Parts: sequence; structure tokens; C-alpha cells
Amino acid sequence: MRDVAILGIGHSKFGKRTDVNFLELGWEAIKEALEDSGVSQEKIDFVAVSNFGLWSSEPSPVAPLLEYAGLNPTEAIRVEAACASGSAAVKAAYMAVASGSADIALALGIEKMHESGTGDVVELLARIGNYFWEFENFGPTFVGYYALYANRYMHDFGAREEDLAKIAVKNHYYGFYNPKAQFRKKITLEDVMSSPYIAWPLKLYDCSPITDGSAAVILASEDIAKKYTDSPVWIKAIEGATATSNLSKRENFISIPSAIEAAKRAYKKAKIDLEKPYKYIDVAEVHDCFTIAEIIAYEDLGFAKRGEGFKLAREEQTYIGGSIPVNLSGGLKSKGHPIATTGVSMIVELTKQLLQRVEPERQAPINNGLALAHNVGGTGHYVFVSILSLEK
Amino acid sequence: MRDVAILGIGHSKFGKRTDVNFLELGWEAIKEALEDSGVSQEKIDFVAVSNFGLWSSEPSPVAPLLEYAGLNPTEAIRVEAACASGSAAVKAAYMAVASGSADIALALGIEKMHESGTGDVVELLARIGNYFWEFENFGPTFVGYYALYANRYMHDFGAREEDLAKIAVKNHYYGFYNPKAQFRKKITLEDVMSSPYIAWPLKLYDCSPITDGSAAVILASEDIAKKYTDSPVWIKAIEGATATSNLSKRENFISIPSAIEAAKRAYKKAKIDLEKPYKYIDVAEVHDCFTIAEIIAYEDLGFAKRGEGFKLAREEQTYIGGSIPVNLSGGLKSKGHPIATTGVSMIVELTKQLLQRVEPERQAPINNGLALAHNVGGTGHYVFVSILSLEK
Repeated sequence: MRDVAILGIGHSKFGKRTDVNFLELGWEAIKEALEDSGVSQEKIDFVAVSNFGLWSSEPSPVAPLLEYAGLNPTEAIRVEAACASGSAAVKAAYMAVASGSADIALALGIEKMHESGTGDVVELLARIGNYFWEFENFGPTFVGYYALYANRYMHDFGAREEDLAKIAVKNHYYGFYNPKAQFRKKITLEDVMSSPYIAWPLKLYDCSPITDGSAAVILASEDIAKKYTDSPVWIKAIEGATATSNLSKRENFISIPSAIEAAKRAYKKAKIDLEKPYKYIDVAEVHDCFTIAEIIAYEDLGFAKRGEGFKLAREEQTYIGGSIPVNLSGGLKSKGHPIATTGVSMIVELTKQLLQRVEPERQAPINNGLALAHNVGGTGHYVFVSILSLEK
Repeated sequence: MRDVAILGIGHSKFGKRTDVNFLELGWEAIKEALEDSGVSQEKIDFVAVSNFGLWSSEPSPVAPLLEYAGLNPTEAIRVEAACASGSAAVKAAYMAVASGSADIALALGIEKMHESGTGDVVELLARIGNYFWEFENFGPTFVGYYALYANRYMHDFGAREEDLAKIAVKNHYYGFYNPKAQFRKKITLEDVMSSPYIAWPLKLYDCSPITDGSAAVILASEDIAKKYTDSPVWIKAIEGATATSNLSKRENFISIPSAIEAAKRAYKKAKIDLEKPYKYIDVAEVHDCFTIAEIIAYEDLGFAKRGEGFKLAREEQTYIGGSIPVNLSGGLKSKGHPIATTGVSMIVELTKQLLQRVEPERQAPINNGLALAHNVGGTGHYVFVSILSLEK
């Protein structure tokens, strides 16, 4: 297996992007990644695009994207793993380079969710749950699914709504400093607590928004990377796992089995101590589609013991200066959550963190040169955990 | 790069499969591939699923498929490249093994098109053309796109409708002997010529049908393959290329530029003489979504000189015993064309051909131990050309 380096990154402004069309939105990230890497289009051997696109009329978006970006005749595929599609695209590009099938590969995540109205988007997303047994029979939406988790978690461990709310406050705090974030507004605990309930105990400010946005990474083999950059970031691991989407078959509602499995595999591959990963990882981006999801992620990833993740939130241990800073981009909550873009956006953000290229107010101290991304599809149908490193 | 072997294959009956649901249809191919390979579910490290699924209400079908097939917690992604999605899935699984990311990987193609009515399916497929510039403005369907090609080809080279019709006659002839084919009925030139025009000069019998079906391949690294089989088939190349989907930007309507490019790359990788590939390849499956497409494929692949592909049809050179036998499965025309299954089905079929496991009436003589698959997405938005070999 060849080592794989991140050669360049690109990221559009996230938000309600009615100012650009789909192709222009994709080009924003691709152009930035090309410029960042110094690679021109004809050098790219393989492209993986993630675009869930349920809200769009275009059923095969890769063809027009490639043409618009001047990337024909490069080999290309689209990949999907629900909200973890972005990580799946990075994985495909990673495998292309690691296998020797490509020397330079591009992964693009793109989503333009405002092509449909909010109600339609919420319904379309709900179908990603368990369509046949749950959506058709009971009609839950995603906030409902995660409210189940929040209920059980609070019941079992004594966490309070305020603990969940603190996740939102933190992520908005950091999102304020991220020029690419959708919501650049600091909020208070009172703002979250007084926001309307969507599905008890989750309130409006516990939820990530509907977002348009794109992100791109350019990957290369070691020998190619050396020619282009003195500061490659290496993908040490990008490991996926799956679980049933049928919540009635889950063993419990306090953990995501596929996240535990993916983390175990990623730590093993990157040779990180399974017991105390937070001692090694400088900064993490985790999938906070709802605030409860970030707390469960702390536990699934081994940042806290089972049932104690909420204490990291309560004690503000995931701010800069705490035991492990998490979601310094603003997370899905404040940066935004363009479904199939999110996984790529996490890799872009962590690359910038490791290279100390983010705004000073949200730059983590880089000690060990290791960063972690945790990207969940559905309610854990698919999870990818990735480890980036400054050392090969 | 690690060598990649085909360890096992599975293939459902193609047709109107109202007798099974989506998950059962997927399991038909997976079960057969597991049994064929001797591999059990927990040995599989990576799954790539291709399912276009526009006609389905299930937006993220991989999760229920994996659960139903007992494949959790295996890492999995869905891939899409329009009608070349199946090849893209095989490519993803191939890269997983070649890179060392997986030792054993499964590629599954599945499509259940009869979940929507014929009119809806034809419209949904038409959107895969160039959605923004062509579908929305002029409303062509796929038979219309390929009729443009047929018109120009006949005009430039003097081919006749009867030459196209002979492709349909040949493919139905072989499909008759394929128990998995949708249409097991021999037809005459007169049958084709008297069938109603859909888009001049293409008639009903020039068109591939709407099909439900699944196909699966299990791939493995060399050391693993040795443990399971004495007769591995090797993937020597699986190369993709892309082109604009916007037909008004194509240089001509007598060739598919991405097919030429993908073939060039595949021949180079498999070290096959670009000038006379038909001297080396024992048998081929090509993308005959419409009869004209098979004739243009002959030329794009170098089986005939430009403008002379129709003579291979006229002189019956692509029957067994001719210069290169093509579509001995019945092709898309008679075997059927479940969109995202087709690419996987081609690899299944060619593996059986190389191992001399097909029905005697449609078994090609295997001399050089090389087989070729040509799989087109859209009107050439994506093309994959694969070369299989009995020799590593």
C-alpha cells in the first residue's frame, strides 16, 4: 500500500447559496484545491464526487461537474454513504492513490440543499433513516431519531438539557471565527434553552441546519507529493463500518456500534492507543448533526468513558485548552451540514488545523501532529473515522 | 499495487422480478457469489454497491442490503456512474483490494426498475442525458440520443437498418441459451425490421429493455485467492474515462471519445496491442443499449476500423467462430439492462466464459485467456473498459 498525502484543499462558503448554481458551487472548492496544491486539471487521474442530491433534478451530477471544471477525460465515480458520503469520496480517492491506480486524485463533496423547500428536505432526509420499517410506518424525521438517543442517554446517565446545549454554544463560538461557516453568531446557553422544542429534549438550537456548500481535497502518492509540497498531511487511516439502520434492532440508544467499530479500526491502523486516544490527538471534528450526537461521539471515540461524555461538555473540556478540542470549525451545528460535503469538509478543516492555517481564535495547539474526523451516515448506517498526521 | 483475482460470482435471473423484493433480489446474487467463492460474510472487508435507484423510494439502499445479507459491520459505499455504475462498483472493490485496504471485497450491482411504471422510467433515464441543456430544453429520451448517432453513422458510412438489426438477431440468438436472460427468444431480421420505430432509424427491437436484476463479484488479493481457488480469473485492467454529456459539444456522432480513451488505457495497462486487440481477446461483452451502440463499440475498441464496424455485423464476425465473439450472454438487448447491474453482470459473464462454465451453445473458444468488458454510462459521460485474464 502506498502512503497517501493531502496535497491541497478547497472549501466554499457554506450557507444558503442562491448566488451560484450547482456547477459554480462545485468549482469554488475545486478551484481553491487546484490553486492550493499547484496541480493542474490534466494531472488528476481519478475523481470521486459525493453528492446526495435528493433535492435536485439532476440524477447523474458528476458528468456536468467534470465538464465545467475542465476535468474530462479523467476517470470519475460518484459515491454515497448517506451523511458520510464525503468520507466515502475521500476513501475512494485514497484507495485510487494507495493502489497505484492514480498518482493524483481529487475528492469533491457538494450539496445544494436549498434547491428544494425546507419541508421537502426534511422529508427526503427522513427517508435515509430506515425507509421500509420506520419511515413508511411511523414517519420519524432525523431529529426524532436522535431524540430517542437523547432521551435514553439523559435517563441512563443523568445528563441534562443544559449539557447538550453547551455543545451548541461551543460550536457557535468557534463557528463565529470561521469565515466559511453558515452561522457566524455566538449564542448563549439561554438562547439554546429558550429555543423551541423540535423533538423533546432536542430544541431548534440542538440541530444542524440545511446547508449548501462544497469542499475538495487533492491526494497524491508520496513521490508526487514531494514534488509539490514541503508540508504534506498524511492520511494514516480512513476506516469505515456499518450497522443496521433499523433502530428497533439496535442493542441500545446510548452508542453507535459502527462508530465504535470504525474508531477501533482507525486507531489500530494509525497505531494509536485505543484506551486513551485523546492523549495523542490534537484536534477532532465529529459529526454533531444534533448536540447529543457529539456527546455520544466522545464516548464512541474513547474521548470519555461511556456515560461521561456529557461531562466533557459540562466542564468545557472540548474547547481549546481542554482535554481535546472538538469542532473548532463550528461543526455541523454552526459551520453547516451540506450532507455529502461534510466528510470532505472535515478533512479540509483538519488539514488546515494541522498546518496551523486557521484563524488564531480557533487554532488548536498542534503537539503530536494528529487529527481525527468522525463522520456518521444516517443513524450510524455508515461511519467513517479518519486519522490525519503530519508524520508519514 | 497488489494483483486482484475474481474469487466468486453470482447473478440473479434478469427480467420483471415482481416475485421478489429489493433485498431478496440483492441476496440472490450475493448468496451465489458467497457459495461460488467459498467465502463467508465475515471474511469480506469492503463492499461496493451500485444501484441507480431513481425509480425507488429508498434513498440509501446499501444499509438495508448489508443488514439483510448479514454483512454488517463491513465497510461499504455506494457508487454511481450512470449506466456504467456496475463497473464503477467493481473498480471500487478492485481498488480496495489492490491498495491493501481490503483482502476480500464484494461488488454488488442491483436494480429493480419495475418499481416505477415504464413512462416514468423512460423519463428518469432521459434525465441522465445532459439534464440542464438537453433534457429540460428539448426533452430527448435515450433512444433519441442514440438515434442521432445511428443517423450520422448510416449517413457517413453507408450502413443500413438491416446491419443494426443483425446485432439484435445475434444477441437474441445467444440470449436464448442464457438461463439468466430476460428475453429467451430467438428473433429474425424480419422481426426487427417490422417492429415499430421508436426514433428513426431505431425500432423497438433495436432497444434494450427495462430490467430488474442483480449481479455480484467477490475479489481477493493473490495470497487469499490461492487459499480459496485453483482457477482465479485476474483483473488485468479496469480503466475509466469521462466526456461531456452535452452532445452539442461532441466532435462527432460516430464515436464515443471516453470509450476510445478508456480502451486505450485498459489495453496499455493489460499490455495488449492497441492496433489489433481482437487478435488477443477471446470474447467481449459490450454495451449494446441500442444496436448502433454495439457497432460503434466495435470501432471505439479497435475491433474494426472506423466506419467498418457495421461490416462485422453484416458478415456475422461477432458470432462464435468469427473474428471476435461479442455479447454471448445476450447483451443488454436480450439478457436485459438493469442499469447499475450491467457492469457487474458483464464481469460475471466473462469470468464464466474464461472458465468455460457457460452453456455449450454460447461458450467462446478460450485461446489466449483474455476477455473484455465495455460499459457505457449515459451517452459516454462515463466509460469503463475492463480486461480479465486467466494469467496473472
